[in-house]
Amino acid sequence: MDNAQLWQRYQDWLYYNEELGFYIDISRIDFDDAFVAQMEPKFDKAFQDIAATEAGAIANPDENRMVGHYWLRDPDLAPTAELKQDIVETQNKIIDFKEKVHSGVICPPSGGKFTDILSIGIGGSALGPQFVAQALAPHNPPLKIHFLDNTDPAGIDKVLTEIGDRLPYTLVSVISKSGGTPETRNGMLEVKKVYEDNGLDFSAHAFAITGKNSKLEAVAKEERWLDIFPMRDWVGGRTSELSAVGMAAAALQGIYVRDMLKGAKMMDALTRKSSIKENPAALLALAWYAAGHGKGEKDMVILPYKDSLLLFSRYLQQLIMESLGKEKDLDGKTVNQGIAVYGNKGSTDQHAYVQQLREGVNNFFLTFVEVLEDREGDTVEVESNISSGDYLLGFLLGTREALSEKQRESITITIPQVNEITVGALIALYERAVGIYASLVNINAYHQPGVEAGKKAAASVLDIQTKLIEELQNTQTPISLEDLASKIQASDRLEIAYKILRHLHANQRGVILEGNFSNPDSLKVSWPGN
Amino acid sequence: MDNAQLWQRYQDWLYYNEELGFYIDISRIDFDDAFVAQMEPKFDKAFQDIAATEAGAIANPDENRMVGHYWLRDPDLAPTAELKQDIVETQNKIIDFKEKVHSGVICPPSGGKFTDILSIGIGGSALGPQFVAQALAPHNPPLKIHFLDNTDPAGIDKVLTEIGDRLPYTLVSVISKSGGTPETRNGMLEVKKVYEDNGLDFSAHAFAITGKNSKLEAVAKEERWLDIFPMRDWVGGRTSELSAVGMAAAALQGIYVRDMLKGAKMMDALTRKSSIKENPAALLALAWYAAGHGKGEKDMVILPYKDSLLLFSRYLQQLIMESLGKEKDLDGKTVNQGIAVYGNKGSTDQHAYVQQLREGVNNFFLTFVEVLEDREGDTVEVESNISSGDYLLGFLLGTREALSEKQRESITITIPQVNEITVGALIALYERAVGIYASLVNINAYHQPGVEAGKKAAASVLDIQTKLIEELQNTQTPISLEDLASKIQASDRLEIAYKILRHLHANQRGVILEGNFSNPDSLKVSWPGN
Repeated sequence: MDNAQLWQRYQDWLYYNEELGFYIDISRIDFDDAFVAQMEPKFDKAFQDIAATEAGAIANPDENRMVGHYWLRDPDLAPTAELKQDIVETQNKIIDFKEKVHSGVICPPSGGKFTDILSIGIGGSALGPQFVAQALAPHNPPLKIHFLDNTDPAGIDKVLTEIGDRLPYTLVSVISKSGGTPETRNGMLEVKKVYEDNGLDFSAHAFAITGKNSKLEAVAKEERWLDIFPMRDWVGGRTSELSAVGMAAAALQGIYVRDMLKGAKMMDALTRKSSIKENPAALLALAWYAAGHGKGEKDMVILPYKDSLLLFSRYLQQLIMESLGKEKDLDGKTVNQGIAVYGNKGSTDQHAYVQQLREGVNNFFLTFVEVLEDREGDTVEVESNISSGDYLLGFLLGTREALSEKQRESITITIPQVNEITVGALIALYERAVGIYASLVNINAYHQPGVEAGKKAAASVLDIQTKLIEELQNTQTPISLEDLASKIQASDRLEIAYKILRHLHANQRGVILEGNFSNPDSLKVSWPGN
Repeated sequence: MDNAQLWQRYQDWLYYNEELGFYIDISRIDFDDAFVAQMEPKFDKAFQDIAATEAGAIANPDENRMVGHYWLRDPDLAPTAELKQDIVETQNKIIDFKEKVHSGVICPPSGGKFTDILSIGIGGSALGPQFVAQALAPHNPPLKIHFLDNTDPAGIDKVLTEIGDRLPYTLVSVISKSGGTPETRNGMLEVKKVYEDNGLDFSAHAFAITGKNSKLEAVAKEERWLDIFPMRDWVGGRTSELSAVGMAAAALQGIYVRDMLKGAKMMDALTRKSSIKENPAALLALAWYAAGHGKGEKDMVILPYKDSLLLFSRYLQQLIMESLGKEKDLDGKTVNQGIAVYGNKGSTDQHAYVQQLREGVNNFFLTFVEVLEDREGDTVEVESNISSGDYLLGFLLGTREALSEKQRESITITIPQVNEITVGALIALYERAVGIYASLVNINAYHQPGVEAGKKAAASVLDIQTKLIEELQNTQTPISLEDLASKIQASDRLEIAYKILRHLHANQRGVILEGNFSNPDSLKVSWPGN
């Protein structure tokens, strides 16, 4: 196509919503009218599926759960009056809590005001809050947020060092639906110990966001933490940014969470339309399907040309890959679905890997995110009539064109500004696009069965560790790996046993390994404490 | 294979170096002895190619340049005495500079000591320093580093707000080989203006890292900046972390750069061996080739189980994708090479996309990075005999096993600690693996021809903007997009013209667009200032 044809195609496919100021452009994805016609019946089914989900159908059959994150933005849509009331009350409770923290009604035991929040959570309990903090937190937030999103001891130490002597003024948010997520539990236990070691009452600094009757709820109640906010089983972790999980963190940082809900509600309304061209989420799903032939054959590279949206791709990695990356379809057929997602920001990434995107393996499609507003306040010119922001746009347009010339496909999303409304709308846009795409490829977007296997395998590793230590404590002389593993009935897990022992040895945990480390079978293990 | 066979394969292929404490394990990549035998001649050639590069051959033929990043770690290898002297003097000069800054001999005009560094650079001038800062900066560094790595006006404002009233105590490092990189130049101009607006002498706060006779060198000399450190044409941006680029930033933060050089030198020596099994970089290259059939068919997912290595994957994205993502091979044949790289950290990413890795599209291989040391100081137990770090290892091993069961391949790199020596060694390991792999697939790893197209296209966008504004300033009545574009001889660039005008309009830059924004052709443009 020449430029005139591309310009016509751009206009033919351009989606624009005036109220939100959003543009979606899929003109640089390679599909034709015949493809769209062929996809129409699949989309009709998808629109029906999503309507049923919103009405309270069991959209997550494996776990026998409703999927209700859309109700959070429009409680009138909740299928029962109880659910509606629960949503509204929780939102009011969070706003009330943040007002009391900001005004000092809820304050540290030593007086003054809370200055920092330490958010302990992982996966859906971290990625949304991290993305939103980076995108929307004001320059001098009422509370500065820190995240513990792992079980790395050095990482925990680093975050606590950053907080330093503000620890007595730090509010701790512990986020876990079951309360059993080990990373979160470990983070909580370590942080609690540091509070106690500093003579501080942890309970007077902590609040929980957790499911009904969870272990964490029991702990928070028993220890009389500051508050408990609910996580509902009809909101999945990866769609929980507009539930208590995301709202509490955002509100405490001074972000207008009501506007995030409003932006999401507006986008939800737009993405309910049952015509592909009038539905921005359907356009995305169509483009994804066209690019990867409905099989994830192309990776999705996300490039927002705006520093504050740096973490959008990490947020989408979870939302998209955990939702779509499935072995079986809804009929039980093996399909190995999914779309790999990566990216950071433009134009920065042009200096990292656009070389490969333009010339190398053509295994991706790009999503540009353009933000029309360059900055708050006046434009600074770096040349006559040219600003830094003009360069930013120039790089986006130049890269789009250079890729297009080489048959590398792209989508462009344009938003007026990065603010609460547009971020809420972006979240809702991608949630819906994922829901539609999942229906197109006939999978359950709301479970994550593959995560269990790794968790079980990890639990078995810790079980072997416990047995190894107990056995070693009763072993008087150095013993070979093989004999030690045999004693604990783990002869078929020698590799695991070896790595556990190597790790304990490296951390001076009582275990001594001796011999030739190039040849693990030759190593002798002992416990000199004996 | 059953566990006993896997354990044997693990030991057969295990690489261990005692001095560095590095282990490389490629046993969970699917290849057999026949494959290795078939690859031997290609590796022999690769070892010869790299030896020639190290001896000063023109390894980057397109740009007629030597490739000398290895000499930085072992100046005795430099092909001439002048080069050797240059390397040693530059390193000494940087150490001398940081000592003077730390001791206050080089100090802000208002007295006191410098407290912060603002590093302005993009691509290779940012990714290495960012990775190393995150991995190695001490908890309370003598200077705290901030990065401007884009031309986003809001991003610039945010960084300057973070620095706030420490601006008079902030050292500014401007890094650009040519001095012509627009993002870096724009950042510098904007920062300079803020210094001047605050009545501060920018030149007394700035130093440059740049190429000989560059525009930036001329500016720094003319304005008498604090210092100028050289970037040499035989060091590419993506391999510049151990040149002045990375050393200055690291040294000022209190990182022991001599140890980074030492670690890299040790790894360089190990990766010079001309036997695959004895050469850790060759083992990586072998595994990459086996996983992607030498065509980049599988993405490389990088998962360090250590928070401080979070940016390793972003660093490798550039090193690997910009080096390997090439359209043509050295014989001019179209090959569209490359390997896509992404990842963040474990176990965090297990809660994001390991669902897809285990069950979804099998289009990747994973690289686990294990760090044996959990933390400085004592172990905290979260259960009897179990620490947070044991969980971290448990998740790594569990995920490796769960993926392996589903024929998802992985490499595991184990290092004793995250410190200057091991980080220097990791950088050198991957630099060499990239060099070897490039030879295996017969491409030039040291140029980036595809980046030029995007830059040229961006320049043409700015050119159109200038013409549009000039034309509009001379136009009395509202005019259609088409007529306006025609007047500046850009009728075939209507889409670009439209987007420029939309952006100027959104930023109140004099341009007014009116009409139906859903239908760009209908818009009328005016310049009410007339």
